[in-house]
Amino acid sequence: MAAIRVHGSPFSTASARVLATLYEKEVEFEFVPVDMRAGEHKKESFLSINPFGQVPGFEHGDLKLFESRAITKYVANEYAEKGTHLVCGDSKKKAIIGVWMEVEAHQFDPVSSKLTWELAVKPVYGMATDKAVVEENEAKLAKVLDVYESRLAKSKYLGCESFTLVDLHHLPNINYLMGTEIKKLFDSRPHVSAWIADITARPAWSKVLAMQKQQ
Amino acid sequence: MAAIRVHGSPFSTASARVLATLYEKEVEFEFVPVDMRAGEHKKESFLSINPFGQVPGFEHGDLKLFESRAITKYVANEYAEKGTHLVCGDSKKKAIIGVWMEVEAHQFDPVSSKLTWELAVKPVYGMATDKAVVEENEAKLAKVLDVYESRLAKSKYLGCESFTLVDLHHLPNINYLMGTEIKKLFDSRPHVSAWIADITARPAWSKVLAMQKQQ
Ligand SMILES: N[C@@H](CCC(=O)N[C@@H](CS)C(=O)NCC(=O)O)C(=O)O
Ligand SMILES: N[C@@H](CCC(=O)N[C@@H](CS)C(=O)NCC(=O)O)C(=O)O
Repeated sequence: MAAIRVHGSPFSTASARVLATLYEKEVEFEFVPVDMRAGEHKKESFLSINPFGQVPGFEHGDLKLFESRAITKYVANEYAEKGTHLVCGDSKKKAIIGVWMEVEAHQFDPVSSKLTWELAVKPVYGMATDKAVVEENEAKLAKVLDVYESRLAKSKYLGCESFTLVDLHHLPNINYLMGTEIKKLFDSRPHVSAWIADITARPAWSKVLAMQKQQ
Repeated sequence: MAAIRVHGSPFSTASARVLATLYEKEVEFEFVPVDMRAGEHKKESFLSINPFGQVPGFEHGDLKLFESRAITKYVANEYAEKGTHLVCGDSKKKAIIGVWMEVEAHQFDPVSSKLTWELAVKPVYGMATDKAVVEENEAKLAKVLDVYESRLAKSKYLGCESFTLVDLHHLPNINYLMGTEIKKLFDSRPHVSAWIADITARPAWSKVLAMQKQQ
């Protein structure tokens, strides 16, 4: 079987999404670190995998993919029978999972990525946090989490009764935000809080965190 | 077969995406206009379909869906054999389509939606366009379109050699932006320009435009 190569950084939220999926599926892969400080992601060899010059990039034999959620879906389908089942159900259940997949991408990700950038990334690089951006996105995230709280009161996980890609896609931003003042938004909602404790405790996710420590 | 009901407005880009898909698939549906000026999308009856209070909402029998791209994917799969084939190929081709599906959602949509809002929607409501936002997003869109230009030089459509949901998802924002100064960004790129002429000429899309005229 052709080898899988993931190009990226374990600190990048989009790369971490792909790494977590490969660990869940127990699929072997080679990790190729991209030195973003040296601008390696804007060089020709990387642009031939992802023309947008962003990590992660992914290769499986001669198939080249980018966009983290396209990669995770490919891996979940291609290795449907291996490791954790990350999709579930008949066509109606799949449709509901599809809804929550889009909710992560269009409601959760834009606001949580901005908060991660302002509160977890900028401080590391000695850049000043923009308080107005934090305030605006904190209010938006609170509204999103209110919807999550009612959803999780009725369903053990966001997409269905078992852990799927939907939950997994949230992990990288949640992990960063749990180390910031935003933690209070999660802690104050009991179902959200239990869900986070559950999904962040997955062995596959610990392996991604271990990769961060090795860097 | 259970009836399909689409709740929304044909002027809403997200609603238009769903309407275009149903017309392509030649699937019958009932359109339920949501009076957004009267705040109908924030009332309990609508929130029971979409807890985020945004159009479109979708019902198929007792299945309730929201998020336009989750709905279009459901319709394309559920009615795979009817109307236009909106997906294509084996698992590798599907993976490539998946990449461009995410490109629309994460690279094209955020910038083009902001431009649509500033240049096509705000003027209609007598609101002032924010020139700094336009400038920033015009520069970002130009970069995205450079990638599209090379992709379309090699592939007739973005996802594969035939028209798919990937192309369709772009239609609503493109339609608005072609009526603004942003048109020049499309016109100056020959492959992008030919692609736009092709996809906006589809009979299914004309039906969505006709619905706008009827309102
Ligand atoms: N939507 C993309 C986002 C990729 C992305 O934004 N990657 C970041 C790191 S998390 C990056 O490469 N940033 C550098 C840049 O944009 O130049 C995905 O999910 O893969
Ligand atoms: N990601 C959602 C976006 C839906 C959306 O933003 N709908 C707009 C109209 S195009 C809306 O309902 N806006 C009113 C609001 O957000 O309150 C989708 O694709 O369905």
